[in-house]
Amino acid sequence: MAQTYPPIHYAEYLKVDDLLSLQKPKSEEYGKSAHDEMLFIVIHQVYELWFRQILFEIDSAIELFSGDRVDERDMLKASSLFQRIIEIQKILIDQVDVLETMTPMDFLEFRDFLYPASGFQSTQFRLIENKLGLVQRLTYNNQDYKTSLPQNKQHEVSATEESPSLFQLLEKWLERTPFLASEAFDFWKAYREKVEDRIATSRQHVMESELNEEVKTVHLKNLEQMDRSFHSIFNKSEYEKLQQEGYWRLSHGALCAALFIHLYRDEPILQLPFQLMTQLATIDENFTQWRHRHAIMVHRMLGAKIGTGGSSGHKYLKATSDKHKVFQDFFNMATFFIPKSDLPELPKEISDKLRFRY
Amino acid sequence: MAQTYPPIHYAEYLKVDDLLSLQKPKSEEYGKSAHDEMLFIVIHQVYELWFRQILFEIDSAIELFSGDRVDERDMLKASSLFQRIIEIQKILIDQVDVLETMTPMDFLEFRDFLYPASGFQSTQFRLIENKLGLVQRLTYNNQDYKTSLPQNKQHEVSATEESPSLFQLLEKWLERTPFLASEAFDFWKAYREKVEDRIATSRQHVMESELNEEVKTVHLKNLEQMDRSFHSIFNKSEYEKLQQEGYWRLSHGALCAALFIHLYRDEPILQLPFQLMTQLATIDENFTQWRHRHAIMVHRMLGAKIGTGGSSGHKYLKATSDKHKVFQDFFNMATFFIPKSDLPELPKEISDKLRFRY
Amino acid sequence: MAQTYPPIHYAEYLKVDDLLSLQKPKSEEYGKSAHDEMLFIVIHQVYELWFRQILFEIDSAIELFSGDRVDERDMLKASSLFQRIIEIQKILIDQVDVLETMTPMDFLEFRDFLYPASGFQSTQFRLIENKLGLVQRLTYNNQDYKTSLPQNKQHEVSATEESPSLFQLLEKWLERTPFLASEAFDFWKAYREKVEDRIATSRQHVMESELNEEVKTVHLKNLEQMDRSFHSIFNKSEYEKLQQEGYWRLSHGALCAALFIHLYRDEPILQLPFQLMTQLATIDENFTQWRHRHAIMVHRMLGAKIGTGGSSGHKYLKATSDKHKVFQDFFNMATFFIPKSDLPELPKEISDKLRFRY
Amino acid sequence: MAQTYPPIHYAEYLKVDDLLSLQKPKSEEYGKSAHDEMLFIVIHQVYELWFRQILFEIDSAIELFSGDRVDERDMLKASSLFQRIIEIQKILIDQVDVLETMTPMDFLEFRDFLYPASGFQSTQFRLIENKLGLVQRLTYNNQDYKTSLPQNKQHEVSATEESPSLFQLLEKWLERTPFLASEAFDFWKAYREKVEDRIATSRQHVMESELNEEVKTVHLKNLEQMDRSFHSIFNKSEYEKLQQEGYWRLSHGALCAALFIHLYRDEPILQLPFQLMTQLATIDENFTQWRHRHAIMVHRMLGAKIGTGGSSGHKYLKATSDKHKVFQDFFNMATFFIPKSDLPELPKEISDKLRFRY
Repeated sequence: MAQTYPPIHYAEYLKVDDLLSLQKPKSEEYGKSAHDEMLFIVIHQVYELWFRQILFEIDSAIELFSGDRVDERDMLKASSLFQRIIEIQKILIDQVDVLETMTPMDFLEFRDFLYPASGFQSTQFRLIENKLGLVQRLTYNNQDYKTSLPQNKQHEVSATEESPSLFQLLEKWLERTPFLASEAFDFWKAYREKVEDRIATSRQHVMESELNEEVKTVHLKNLEQMDRSFHSIFNKSEYEKLQQEGYWRLSHGALCAALFIHLYRDEPILQLPFQLMTQLATIDENFTQWRHRHAIMVHRMLGAKIGTGGSSGHKYLKATSDKHKVFQDFFNMATFFIPKSDLPELPKEISDKLRFRY
Repeated sequence: MAQTYPPIHYAEYLKVDDLLSLQKPKSEEYGKSAHDEMLFIVIHQVYELWFRQILFEIDSAIELFSGDRVDERDMLKASSLFQRIIEIQKILIDQVDVLETMTPMDFLEFRDFLYPASGFQSTQFRLIENKLGLVQRLTYNNQDYKTSLPQNKQHEVSATEESPSLFQLLEKWLERTPFLASEAFDFWKAYREKVEDRIATSRQHVMESELNEEVKTVHLKNLEQMDRSFHSIFNKSEYEKLQQEGYWRLSHGALCAALFIHLYRDEPILQLPFQLMTQLATIDENFTQWRHRHAIMVHRMLGAKIGTGGSSGHKYLKATSDKHKVFQDFFNMATFFIPKSDLPELPKEISDKLRFRY
Repeated sequence: MAQTYPPIHYAEYLKVDDLLSLQKPKSEEYGKSAHDEMLFIVIHQVYELWFRQILFEIDSAIELFSGDRVDERDMLKASSLFQRIIEIQKILIDQVDVLETMTPMDFLEFRDFLYPASGFQSTQFRLIENKLGLVQRLTYNNQDYKTSLPQNKQHEVSATEESPSLFQLLEKWLERTPFLASEAFDFWKAYREKVEDRIATSRQHVMESELNEEVKTVHLKNLEQMDRSFHSIFNKSEYEKLQQEGYWRLSHGALCAALFIHLYRDEPILQLPFQLMTQLATIDENFTQWRHRHAIMVHRMLGAKIGTGGSSGHKYLKATSDKHKVFQDFFNMATFFIPKSDLPELPKEISDKLRFRY
Repeated sequence: MAQTYPPIHYAEYLKVDDLLSLQKPKSEEYGKSAHDEMLFIVIHQVYELWFRQILFEIDSAIELFSGDRVDERDMLKASSLFQRIIEIQKILIDQVDVLETMTPMDFLEFRDFLYPASGFQSTQFRLIENKLGLVQRLTYNNQDYKTSLPQNKQHEVSATEESPSLFQLLEKWLERTPFLASEAFDFWKAYREKVEDRIATSRQHVMESELNEEVKTVHLKNLEQMDRSFHSIFNKSEYEKLQQEGYWRLSHGALCAALFIHLYRDEPILQLPFQLMTQLATIDENFTQWRHRHAIMVHRMLGAKIGTGGSSGHKYLKATSDKHKVFQDFFNMATFFIPKSDLPELPKEISDKLRFRY
């Protein structure tokens, strides 16, 4: 308390009176008071407040990763931002339980008054998606998602389609990872050799084993498939083919660095970067979960249309929970790990750089 | 304490020593100790203990609903059983967070030792599915699910395919609902009239409104679709067609009763039955969520296969989260509700029977 | 959709622009931007929104229980209101995890700017306490809690000290429970006999048992204490003494009815009332938990004062988690249950009234 | 899969048959089957399984911190162990909800059969407490806690009272923190000067301000108290007095290092150590919460004894939630932080050692 500031009251600081004046049930306006509309308004306002906070943290993360170099002193900060987003997401998911205390019959009492308002029209949620780096969006009724946003927000949302997303900044940051290729050590080459060794040895083990022929064939087929898989990441042009098919999104260089960080995560300098990538995978997973819970809840509230006339909301939502992913590469990547004991040993020259010296 | 019993110690009562002797990491047996295998064993044993409890509750519920008549005195009991299952399911879902503290690299240290063990082989989970009433199961690698169970359990599991499931007992119980058709009152007929009125009035409102033609057309099309939808439940033969297509599973009579109970849930005798159906929908929803979280977790742990060689585990799991549903009718049904204020009024003769008299 | 209403947009319906304009960090105003202040504001606004919803539900519950007679048709509604409060409380508790992503060092960056604002000054929380029926409040720094509220709210809060609380209305409702005393059946007398029998039988079992003398003495002492305990509820004047000492709060008549409802909860007419009381106990438990988590969090954020100069915030909060209880009688009551098998049987005349007849 | 291992089945790997044979309800043995006893057994077995896992992680953590030097390469590992404990604890707390689906009346059906078994007698929980470093334990009925453990476990538990606890190892590790005192920089001296400056400046601000005299007096009194507080940590002999009074537990050297790590947590070498201490505080907080929930649940299940005859279980449990703390210093410490902007600047010579150089 090195300085004194004018005293302030809780109610004034938090604008409580203003806040509590923003719940305006339509059912009351129309003289057909429906008890559960208050909950419906309150929970959606709570969602918007949390979206505001998530956006605030994403903006900070984008700032941290925007420079040409990210200071290691900022790693803990970045990790804290991501952890906060994760904790908020858990609440977003869990509070669907609150909304589900409203039954379909309760909703029916005021549903018609809100037409065509929909969570679909949340500007902030679109900003979150764009700033994280969502690019391939499913369309609903064949319309650009921005047409359902308020007119005065469409420009702001468009702008985030152009400016660097967290995904893009992360990718650049990964691409800049040092240590991967030097005179002393070529990670990619060393890794490839180990992988090939491993597959060859496995093949031999299988063939020399006393397994029956049928089982042997299965094992050998699996090994062959593994061989081909690995080949597709070691070979840049094959990798880029898979990128075009949508299996990978990260550049080849970024993926290689991400792999390195996962495999050698115990090296001091890689500990926080590993943690960051794990957190981003969790953030993706949590939004997937949230969309999925949301979809089920909508199904429960509205039922399901019979017949083919138009896609129904809950099916669209369920589809987005499958497709609207940003950091899926951090999931797919696990296919390309090998056990710690089989990793190429880092030469002292490299491993020294990954540690503290004091 | 009307009688005295021999004193017993916590450790003896819970068989703690035996319990704690059942964790036998393969990685230790093979002399390649992997830290995270203990967690892997413990969490799966916890899952099996919870499955045991869920089965125990389902068995009790099946017993309660097995008679020719379910005593209203058993409604609270049934509701408690279902609520317990729900609370356990929340834990099943949340504890995936614990498993996710194991990273793919940690798993890789012992994964090969367990081949081909898989959660797929859990007998108890299959019993749960069968006893709840799952019938249409996705196949994995084109094999009957029972082939992956232990030999000595296959018979027990087969038996549950034949004996009455909770779904079937519920359906019978719904079919026996009185009050729906008497001289004084024919619910189905009265409801149909109200629905048709409602659609006709809406149509008129739209046509007389000052909406532009395009919007009018959309509204009218929606009303027409609603009309056809409702027709498909009022007409038994159309209903049965939808049943064959898999949209509905309940018999026409059971669905009609379920609808009645939802619409008039405030009547004292319908309060607990309404609550039971809501709980069963939640149980379905929770297993859906659990399968979905499980699928994502598997994806994260194992990555995703490239190419077409065989279906991958997480995709299968995700598909089951869509398809392995038992009480989906309680979700779909919401399409056929109309607001309370539009419901046919119950004649005093009926409503008296739905209340207490003292 | 029997009528058409003017279309409305999500942003307009939820007043999103207004809502998102209410976060005004002091640290920015003072040119000393502190990252975590946004979270601090957002989470407290979320708390206030949830308090609004809880108040809304409590008000509805108070209305339901205000008449001279509560219609059984309103039991499900009441139970839904309480369940909603419970689900919201879980979120209130869990979201402390979000606040704890702010570390003490982060808080220090803007703490001084807020002085002396405090959660203590939340008008809504006081209204919740009063409307539930909190009467004996710990004082903080020897001041009436209302002095810290905004001037223009003190009157509103005072008013709730006078108007009937949920506790009081519940008590009246319990007191009106029929069935307890009629020519056919005097519950209180029958229960007393059963209890006395049970204790006498137990005493005999102990004395005839082969337990050693020391253990016998312990058992007999326990039985004697049990005897005295039960005596204190069967005897109205002793009961009232315990009421004055603060052990009980409900009137003797209300407690007797609450006991009856718990013991015979399976009777159809008692199922929902039993459920309601269980929910109210849970609501109490949840606020206790919330205060406790809150206390620990404050301790963690601010540390603990050394020495005796003034009570520290977290100790006060912890004390309120012990003392600020409303429905504690529903907890204490468990001491006075006896097993189902030992209950007095209800004469047919009574039990018929507790069931449906159709 | 560099080697092939004998195939294993899920049921065999997890010893499912053995596991599911360990639930032996006493109520069945006595021919008085009580439905809820199964839940009671299952949930307590689940607790013991989780305790096993927590112990396993604590043992690993103890091993990591046992050497004369903790390799920075082990920091991420340690942090993962702690995070896993935290995730398990959340489940321990949340699953009380499952147990609370058992009502007091349900429990009464089998309670007498279990006498005097109690969670109190859990060996594993005592091991957890001792290995974490709990030393001052409240006594229950004036007996050493070990007398209630199984005879054959008492020795094992005693041994953990003697061997180094996690608390003690952490303390040694903190004491060894380099960087705190060198020719270039004496942290403790520099910090003291900054603190004194800060208080002096604040004093002056207050006196020169236009606040009224009463408010000034309050502020000045607070500053004086702050001054005395800080003095008590800067002065080793005063610190040790507070240690004897139980305010602090860490040695003076360890506390000083802990403070340094918190204040300069952004320095790369301090990021993980900071994270570890935060996690340990959370582990403490979670056990506190768990004890507290447990206490309330016991109260709800058993009621509360009237009068003074013996301490009741739930009050004892509540008291332990206040007193059984291990890492409380990490909470109290917050009192002695000052804002980042006021911290002594680290000389380049020091800050270079805290970063990577590559």
